[in-house]
Order: sequence, then structure tokens, then C-alpha cells
Amino acid sequence: MIERLCIIGVGLIGGSIARAARAQGLCREIIGADREPDNLRKARELGAIDVAYADIREAARMADFVVIATPVGACAAIFNDLRSVWRPKAIYTDAGSTKFSVIKAARRAFGGEVPANFVPGHPVAGAEQSGIGAAVCDLYVGKRVVLTPLSNTSPAALAAVSAFWSAMGAKVSEMDVLHHDRVLAATSHLPHVLAYVLVHMLGKRDEKEEIFQYAAGGFRDFTRIASSDPKMWLDICMANRAEITPLIQQLKNELDTVLDMLDDNRSQELFDFFSCAKQARQRFLDLIENK
Amino acid sequence: MIERLCIIGVGLIGGSIARAARAQGLCREIIGADREPDNLRKARELGAIDVAYADIREAARMADFVVIATPVGACAAIFNDLRSVWRPKAIYTDAGSTKFSVIKAARRAFGGEVPANFVPGHPVAGAEQSGIGAAVCDLYVGKRVVLTPLSNTSPAALAAVSAFWSAMGAKVSEMDVLHHDRVLAATSHLPHVLAYVLVHMLGKRDEKEEIFQYAAGGFRDFTRIASSDPKMWLDICMANRAEITPLIQQLKNELDTVLDMLDDNRSQELFDFFSCAKQARQRFLDLIENK
Repeated sequence: MIERLCIIGVGLIGGSIARAARAQGLCREIIGADREPDNLRKARELGAIDVAYADIREAARMADFVVIATPVGACAAIFNDLRSVWRPKAIYTDAGSTKFSVIKAARRAFGGEVPANFVPGHPVAGAEQSGIGAAVCDLYVGKRVVLTPLSNTSPAALAAVSAFWSAMGAKVSEMDVLHHDRVLAATSHLPHVLAYVLVHMLGKRDEKEEIFQYAAGGFRDFTRIASSDPKMWLDICMANRAEITPLIQQLKNELDTVLDMLDDNRSQELFDFFSCAKQARQRFLDLIENK
Repeated sequence: MIERLCIIGVGLIGGSIARAARAQGLCREIIGADREPDNLRKARELGAIDVAYADIREAARMADFVVIATPVGACAAIFNDLRSVWRPKAIYTDAGSTKFSVIKAARRAFGGEVPANFVPGHPVAGAEQSGIGAAVCDLYVGKRVVLTPLSNTSPAALAAVSAFWSAMGAKVSEMDVLHHDRVLAATSHLPHVLAYVLVHMLGKRDEKEEIFQYAAGGFRDFTRIASSDPKMWLDICMANRAEITPLIQQLKNELDTVLDMLDDNRSQELFDFFSCAKQARQRFLDLIENK
């Protein structure tokens, strides 16, 4: 049982961790830290947290389990704050969508080596709504959580973080840091960039031609992730651009392939291309249904 | 009341028209035509149609209302078949996603002029499942149907087709042929191409690295339309490539813009870009909620 759970960043992700931890009886007290007083106020009103601090050091000073659940761009400043109150016996983890950038920020703050009791982690879950108001206690049920421990990570800390997520219903696995950032760039970051780009492009045109009134359910689902929090996705794109930019280039090449097929009237090849995509998606569907 | 409704192509779209027409009591008898005997057999077993013909001429000969609901690439051959049994007093329409290509096919078959009793139409509705098994009686409820009449289209035929769709719960509007093809290229055809391209690209990688197991709900929704019928979408892309290819080019340019922002670390601009997209999608959501 965790005595004092400290959540830094009480938005959708952090708020859902607080609610799930409470629902599963994983801790006695939940301390929230956020630089937005409004978020803290709402989190207390909703009963997601017990105590609220604007100052991260105040919040983390007495905690024995600390989760950083902010946009990844904030991690550098947070590690700097935490350094002065870091407790060797506490457990620290994060919920950032990119892992190399978070580890780099920790290295810098701690003078070269990431503390052994910090376990980098990423719950592969979310919603296009953001903020504490969207937080729910079952956000992580059945979802993957990827932990990317380093060579010096304490096995006990790793086990504690793994058990924490498992208790909230998540399926925990471990992965190499760079492999994580490469895989998620493909399955998550690239689709988000694409959705933003498409909606940005069509939105400009809609202002003049009102084309959105003729968009249907396919468009709604395809663009759902373009309603995601822009700050969070800015941070992810900047933090993981080394992996994302080659994928955007590759996608542009694939679009050229399709353009060539259209130009040259190569119907059979385009049919095979679409069929191959449909089969690949069926493989994905079979996978998530058998999870 | 339609005496004999003939549906050419008893898949998702045609089957749903049959079911809706039956549910709303719009016709006495439903005749189905399809070149796949299996589709006809299933459509009869499911009670979607009363009579089945493999031969389009047999099916349409005695009908007073004919709907072509095949992939648009089949329209040329269908008009050639229909020509010999064309009835001046019957009403003809289609449900193709592209309109210029269908009208061109009709012009060719009828020696230059589209018959006045043919009303080109497009129900902006669908599902990623295809086939008569996925057909439902409420597919068109609340959905847009765009009719693109020509200068010689009979006002009576136009009114009859409009009333037909309205009775099935659709919201009917009229549009210029080329405007239709331009707008739908943006809101429907381009997103489908993008979804196929992304899943094709990641599917190849999944075969080697099993990346799909780390894909979440955002990926599932973003790629839903990549499970659509490849033949239908091949036909649409080929029929409307004049409108689709410049949009693919434009999207590549937008991707370049994002690549530049990433390369040059222009965070504020990328944040504004994402925010602008999120706002545009909100406009779309407000629109469909107020429909």
C-alpha cells in the first residue's frame, strides 16, 4: 500500500491514474501538483485528489510514489524541481508518450545518471478529450503500459511500478527506450500528425466553401485524434522528431507511389495496394480482439 | 407508390436501399440484379429482395424505379445494358460516390445526351463493412444525399428521386456535378486514400516488427476506413483522380510545412497549426451535432 501517492499534472492521464489508484485502494492519500490552480481546484472538487500543491517540491517532499503525468516538454523543469526533494526510498515514474526525451531530461537534471528509483513508463491509452474533467477510473483497463527501464534501474522500483499499473488493469510490458520511441512514432505519433495535417488543410477550405457539411462518419472517425490536446502533441512531436520525420518522408513516398498508379491507370496495382492495407488492418483488429 | 423497384447491385448500399424502401412501404415489389449469384441468393434469403436476376435487362425491363448501386466502374457496362430496355416513363438514379464519371458513362451509352429521366445521385453514407449482410434499413436516416441534376434532367424525375430518399430519412440537397466531385474528393476520397496508405506502410513493418500490438484506440478509429471495400475505392479513385491527385499533392506540401517546423524547432508555429486543426474539427463536430 502506497502511503502518499503524488501525481504531477492532474489532467486526463494523471487524473485517471488518481481515480484508478483510489478505486483499487492502492494508496492512502493522493497529492496533486499542477501549475494551473484551476486544474487543482477541479481535481479536489471531483475528489480525484486529497491535497493540492502548486509547488512540485511541496507536493513530492513526503510522497513515497510519484507519477509525472504532464506533457513531456515539462519534464526537464520538473526533474530540476524534484532533485532537491528526491527521496532514495520513494518510487518515481512518468506517463510520457516519448521515452528518450524524458530520460535525457532526467540525466541532465541529475548530472549524468538517471536515479535508479525512476522507472520511465508510458500508458498507451488516452482520449481526444483532455483535462481532469475527462478523467475516469478505468482508462487503463486492458490497455498496454510500456516500461523502458535502464541498465541501472532498481529491480524493486521496476517491480513496484509494474505492480501499480497491473493493479489498475493494464497489461505491462518492457521495451528498449529507442525501440519504444520508434514503434510509437509509427502507430501513434504519425497518425496524429496526419490527422492534424488533413483537418488543417480541409479546415482552411471549409472556411470558404463549407465542405464539412458533406463529411460523414468516415471523416469523423478518421479525424477524431485531431481533437487531441495541441500542447501535448507539440511536445511529443518535438521530443520524438528524430523518429517521426523519417516516417513522414516515407509516407510522402507512399503517396507518390499511389499518385503514379493513378497517373498511369495501373488499376490492378492500386487494387492490390488497397487490398493489402485492408488485410493489414484485419490483422490489427484480430490482434486487439484477441487481447 | 413504386410498383417495381429495381436495385442493380445488392451490396451494402443497394441492400440498405431495398431494406429502407421496404420498411417505409415505398414499393410493392423489389427486384434485385447482381452479377454475383451469391449476393442475389443471400439478398433473397434475407428478404431484402423479392425477385432476383443475374441479367440487368431482365431485372429492369418491367421496373418503374431503377437504382444503380454498384461500384462506379461498372456504370458504363450497366448503361449499355439498360439502353435496350430503357423506359421513358420509369425513373432512374444511381448511388455512386463520383458523379462526373457516371454522367460521362451515361452520355457515352446514350450517344451524347443523358436521358432526362436519369437523376445522378450520391448518398453520403456507408460503413467499412460491405455486402448485403451489412445492409440495414436505417443506413440513410439523417444522412445527406446529394443529387446532381443536369440541365435537361426532368423536374418530375428529380422530384421523385428526392422524395424517394427523403422518405428513407435522408436529407436531400442538390449540387453542381463538378462541385460534388471536388468537395467529396476532399472530405471522403482523400481520407480513404490516406488511411489505406498509412495502413499499407505500417502493415509492411508490422510483418517484421509486430508494431500493431502497441497501437491503441486512436489508431483503430483513424484506420477504420482502411477496412472499406478495395474494389469500390479503386473505382472511386480512378473515376475521380482529376480531383484527388491535386489534393494528394497539397497534402504532401502540408506535410513538408510540418517537416520544416520540426526541423527548425518552430514550436509556436506547430502549436498554432495543431490548434487550428483542433478548432476546425470542433467546427465540424458542432455542424454534425446541429444537423
